[in-house]
Amino acid sequence: MNFVKEHRVKPGEKLKLKSLDTKTKGPFEDKEAAKQHTAKMVRQIQDLQYKMFVEDKQSLLVVLQAPDAAGKDGLIRKVLGQMNPQGCRTYPFKVPSKKELGHDFLWRIHKCTPEKGMVSIFNRSHYEDVLVVRVEDIVPKSVWSKRFEVINHFEQGLALAGTTILKIYLHISPEEQLERFKKRYDNPEKHWKLNPGDYTARSKWDAYREAYQEAFERCSTDAAPWFVIPADHKWYRDASVASIVAQTLSEMNPQMPKPDVDLAEIKALYEAELAKQQT
Amino acid sequence: MNFVKEHRVKPGEKLKLKSLDTKTKGPFEDKEAAKQHTAKMVRQIQDLQYKMFVEDKQSLLVVLQAPDAAGKDGLIRKVLGQMNPQGCRTYPFKVPSKKELGHDFLWRIHKCTPEKGMVSIFNRSHYEDVLVVRVEDIVPKSVWSKRFEVINHFEQGLALAGTTILKIYLHISPEEQLERFKKRYDNPEKHWKLNPGDYTARSKWDAYREAYQEAFERCSTDAAPWFVIPADHKWYRDASVASIVAQTLSEMNPQMPKPDVDLAEIKALYEAELAKQQT
Repeated sequence: MNFVKEHRVKPGEKLKLKSLDTKTKGPFEDKEAAKQHTAKMVRQIQDLQYKMFVEDKQSLLVVLQAPDAAGKDGLIRKVLGQMNPQGCRTYPFKVPSKKELGHDFLWRIHKCTPEKGMVSIFNRSHYEDVLVVRVEDIVPKSVWSKRFEVINHFEQGLALAGTTILKIYLHISPEEQLERFKKRYDNPEKHWKLNPGDYTARSKWDAYREAYQEAFERCSTDAAPWFVIPADHKWYRDASVASIVAQTLSEMNPQMPKPDVDLAEIKALYEAELAKQQT
Repeated sequence: MNFVKEHRVKPGEKLKLKSLDTKTKGPFEDKEAAKQHTAKMVRQIQDLQYKMFVEDKQSLLVVLQAPDAAGKDGLIRKVLGQMNPQGCRTYPFKVPSKKELGHDFLWRIHKCTPEKGMVSIFNRSHYEDVLVVRVEDIVPKSVWSKRFEVINHFEQGLALAGTTILKIYLHISPEEQLERFKKRYDNPEKHWKLNPGDYTARSKWDAYREAYQEAFERCSTDAAPWFVIPADHKWYRDASVASIVAQTLSEMNPQMPKPDVDLAEIKALYEAELAKQQT
């Protein structure tokens, strides 16, 4: 199955998020089969990411957005964070600081885009500035509605400079979210995650869905596509995202650089050292 | 075995790096036993680091220094990089840029120290400014010789603000280094790592050893100890560093925060949502 094709929002496509499945099992017979597939994809990702790191010519940006409890943290831990930490950084974007608010909304984002050879993972992102900001009425429509175009130009600029961009939305049903809230409540180890605000956001489910929908429709571009990932099953979420990242890295086709040294010179240096050591 | 006690450079201690073993097997019968120990320690590290991340009150800085081919990259991949990527960042410090050289030597370092809840791993560090800079005569002695005190004050300042500091030196023998250079040469996949400069640095082994020695003697403090890790056996290197990091995190004793929400309120919110869903 081609997970990229399956879940990619086509540029210009009209989206009905409400009617997109959250529960698919895709081609997997069961959880175990999906986990095996994920493990295989993670090994491919590790191999390709290492090549990209050494090649030092292009970079990858993975943007994650999702309702609360949809599984961003689990996905990072089990899939994306399995990359070599020397070539991969995760950036959380929380409520902006006073200093950050003193700048345009892309200022804090731009500082975290990946340099050549590197992967950046954004846990939330500049999309909050057309999502939460819109639903909670933090900035007026006259401001946020102009940001879609600003975002597209920004992302095209990154792409032109050699950054491949994947934007992943974890799509869960409100029923599954409530189930997960319950699990947090039932497990004292997870009590620190409890927050009445989760229920406030939940009460605005339709408004958020509308905001997501417009963001995906207007900002899924060839340079920076959005993917809507059915995420009620954690194992499908992991398997499909791992596949999309692996396929993307594979298409980036990173190449180990040819040595730019004289091999004969290195050999001579080695042999001289060996001789010195043996005397 | 208490690896912290075993390998810690005591403040004020005179060091003879040359006579420190590089090949110890410690308490391990063989490679397999060491690997099992490392796996156990890594699980402890993951658990404690997650607690520290959630606790959000203290931080950890791990500084790595070593001769070429001593295994910093392998150690990061197999041990340190196994931490949750949301709470851990690796920073390489290469030859400083023109802009960085326009500042004092700690400027670029300070930007990468860990905030509360986080771990920073430094692949090379501010110690290069009393090591390579000294041996290669890049700045005069009158400058670098004053830096030991500057470093100690800097590190004490970090410690006062809640950062625990571990400084790890991977101690390999010149024979083992040469063996690893050969392996790089023999494996075309590793040719990109070949560099005649490695042999130049190698020819200054004694000068580097003297520089390391003075740095460890003058900058191993209670607030920021140096550890000299026998690193000829990769599995001993991994097992001992994993133990030191696990013990350190355990002594930092991170605690999951108590929920600051009203559990009854959350329960009522949940039940109201559930009722709504069932109608």
